Amino acid sequence: MKSFSHLNARGEANMVDVSAKRPASRQAVARGEILLRPATLAAVKTNKTAKGNVLATARVAGILAAKKTGELIPLCHPLNIAHCAVEFEIPPAGDRVVITATARVRAATGVEMEALTAVAVAALTIYDMCKGLDKTMRITNIVLLSKTKI
Amino acid sequence: MKSFSHLNARGEANMVDVSAKRPASRQAVARGEILLRPATLAAVKTNKTAKGNVLATARVAGILAAKKTGELIPLCHPLNIAHCAVEFEIPPAGDRVVITATARVRAATGVEMEALTAVAVAALTIYDMCKGLDKTMRITNIVLLSKTKI
Amino acid sequence: MKSFSHLNARGEANMVDVSAKRPASRQAVARGEILLRPATLAAVKTNKTAKGNVLATARVAGILAAKKTGELIPLCHPLNIAHCAVEFEIPPAGDRVVITATARVRAATGVEMEALTAVAVAALTIYDMCKGLDKTMRITNIVLLSKTKI
Amino acid sequence: MKSFSHLNARGEANMVDVSAKRPASRQAVARGEILLRPATLAAVKTNKTAKGNVLATARVAGILAAKKTGELIPLCHPLNIAHCAVEFEIPPAGDRVVITATARVRAATGVEMEALTAVAVAALTIYDMCKGLDKTMRITNIVLLSKTKI
Amino acid sequence: MKSFSHLNARGEANMVDVSAKRPASRQAVARGEILLRPATLAAVKTNKTAKGNVLATARVAGILAAKKTGELIPLCHPLNIAHCAVEFEIPPAGDRVVITATARVRAATGVEMEALTAVAVAALTIYDMCKGLDKTMRITNIVLLSKTKI
Amino acid sequence: MKSFSHLNARGEANMVDVSAKRPASRQAVARGEILLRPATLAAVKTNKTAKGNVLATARVAGILAAKKTGELIPLCHPLNIAHCAVEFEIPPAGDRVVITATARVRAATGVEMEALTAVAVAALTIYDMCKGLDKTMRITNIVLLSKTKI
Repeated sequence: MKSFSHLNARGEANMVDVSAKRPASRQAVARGEILLRPATLAAVKTNKTAKGNVLATARVAGILAAKKTGELIPLCHPLNIAHCAVEFEIPPAGDRVVITATARVRAATGVEMEALTAVAVAALTIYDMCKGLDKTMRITNIVLLSKTKI
Repeated sequence: MKSFSHLNARGEANMVDVSAKRPASRQAVARGEILLRPATLAAVKTNKTAKGNVLATARVAGILAAKKTGELIPLCHPLNIAHCAVEFEIPPAGDRVVITATARVRAATGVEMEALTAVAVAALTIYDMCKGLDKTMRITNIVLLSKTKI
Repeated sequence: MKSFSHLNARGEANMVDVSAKRPASRQAVARGEILLRPATLAAVKTNKTAKGNVLATARVAGILAAKKTGELIPLCHPLNIAHCAVEFEIPPAGDRVVITATARVRAATGVEMEALTAVAVAALTIYDMCKGLDKTMRITNIVLLSKTKI
Repeated sequence: MKSFSHLNARGEANMVDVSAKRPASRQAVARGEILLRPATLAAVKTNKTAKGNVLATARVAGILAAKKTGELIPLCHPLNIAHCAVEFEIPPAGDRVVITATARVRAATGVEMEALTAVAVAALTIYDMCKGLDKTMRITNIVLLSKTKI
Repeated sequence: MKSFSHLNARGEANMVDVSAKRPASRQAVARGEILLRPATLAAVKTNKTAKGNVLATARVAGILAAKKTGELIPLCHPLNIAHCAVEFEIPPAGDRVVITATARVRAATGVEMEALTAVAVAALTIYDMCKGLDKTMRITNIVLLSKTKI
Repeated sequence: MKSFSHLNARGEANMVDVSAKRPASRQAVARGEILLRPATLAAVKTNKTAKGNVLATARVAGILAAKKTGELIPLCHPLNIAHCAVEFEIPPAGDRVVITATARVRAATGVEMEALTAVAVAALTIYDMCKGLDKTMRITNIVLLSKTKI
């Protein structure tokens, strides 16, 4: 088994040294879901303005969070991301919002944590904006879909 | 159905006005999980120092994130939390870390977003520290367990 | 003439001591404008989704900036604002967006800088989102409209 | 008319993808004004230490804000600026401070928002430091003077 | 010996719960020094503008850092400080700058970390501004002078 | 004597322009100490979990602070550090913790302030975590050990 890259020889926290790695163009895509009661989601969907704003606010929050990743995750390298997009999809079952975030960078290290952080904070923002309506929400299934050099 | 508290009459984003609410002592508890391959978790568990540090780092990240909630979630009120604790549990099945966060405040509004944010960022930190070992991790089941006046 | 409240006896920068002031509920309202070419503003107005998002993004940016005021303005007291709203109006002349921000707090000091900061950052965000279309924009007339105890 | 670069095909907020753009040395210069009552400005000018400190504090605030631009403006790319200068000029009429900010970077995208943000936050800081003396101040005429590759 | 207040029963990091403590007006004063070569300090002292600005910049940095204490020190409670002053003194020996910071708050917990953080960051700022001239600087003797209820 | 690099021709604060400097791989190492009563340090050393956590928390705080240097020190360039390590040593005399921080970057300017900031904030964090036990602590001897191109 590989060793933990973030722990030094004595097992202490340590930022991986990427000073010898060459910059490359990198992309990561992450996805997650927030489950809501159908009535909550119907309110989001039918109230056009409200929907626009719940999701628009969550999108902005996710993008801003991607830019803060190195500040939130202690051993992440700070990165100047070149792109971040946050997309929302409401599957026909009408019980969840699926959140997909794509991040790109030209750097010596990848952007998977930026994509995952964007998903998590977008989900938390939806939670915050709907919590007056729904006490049963659940943020779930946050995974990395892909990590590639581009 | 109740209206969305964060959207004003025209459906635009809006911080709820809590200036007329009385401060009270409030507590919120949130929980979530990160699923890891058993081999990853075994590495966390058997390497004492490593375990100490993966979870210790995630705990610090979660507490710091709770203090940043108002900066991450656009319509959250900034709060001076009085307490935040982040606890980890590894159930016997050995396939996940269960994260529980408790936040307390004396304020005019509750701390559920602080507790949920602490859980999410602690989970992202575990992800970051184990991602060199495991490409299958999943952050899941982030829910609010309780919200009480104390 | 009154002396400068932020400069001590030797003329050095100094946060005003508000530790002996009593908390009160306070409100401030600020306003400003961004002038755009009519074609730019027409694009904002006729493209419904685009408009929603330019202004929705600027609104979120303004609210978040109000919460960061104490971090941006060196001698401002950090405050936990109880409310912030950012509103946009497009006068019939069709050459500007008028931005109004209202902030409220229960604290020992006022929130005029929070309202002014929200206006300024909302205007900068509109600038940023339209700058690919329009090189002639101007942010102007940022003033405090009122400061009251409520 | 060109399309909005910050809005994707569905009109949703989106950070422009600059991952394929080549880094270049770029400069932007922005300017703005804050109008003050002559008595306020006379106090700034005649009290040497006070003047030094009002403007020195505003200069530091402007430079720090330039470094925070990507955190304040949702769709701005985070940039490691190579240089920022903030200059103040008091025209003979004695009724305003003219603020000029210059930012430089070697990056795939320009620094106009950094220069504009430095001007806006320097102006807000002057406002904050003089607001005990003058209730009539106005921040105005914030424009981009130039944007060049260097 | 008293137990560690920041470690819970299992020795894990933990923000002390102050939700049951009553707010009081509290003050803390901290002091520290930065040793410089006499020629460096002479340059600071004889170049009036330079001196004004090295110390003015460090003063602003110290005050801003006091407001960020809860973000920098993981288990510190976030506090809305009511006052912060940073003072500099150059003793006759001409080999150091003595930095004194005073912080005040009305809160359930004290502000000693805010005062100490202001001193440390003011010293780091002097270091940064003089490091082109002097490779021998030393930041030293950072202590808490007093912690009182007022 | 060399002139102050951070002050422009009129002696005003100014970020040094590094836009014409070539990026290089750079490293800086800084060191500092915190003096504690032997009983405090014995508590840190004998309580294994406590020690792990006091120092683990301080290490995380130091690494996070290195990433925030450009935000704390007004005229520092923001840098995307490639590596940061914070190490602790307890000399046999048992009266202090010696803190060493190493930072690396590939950039147009050095990382000495990042290494020094990591040391200072790690020391402040130890202070914070032990201050319930020990009122005599002193943070001292913070110096730059080396600054090299690598």
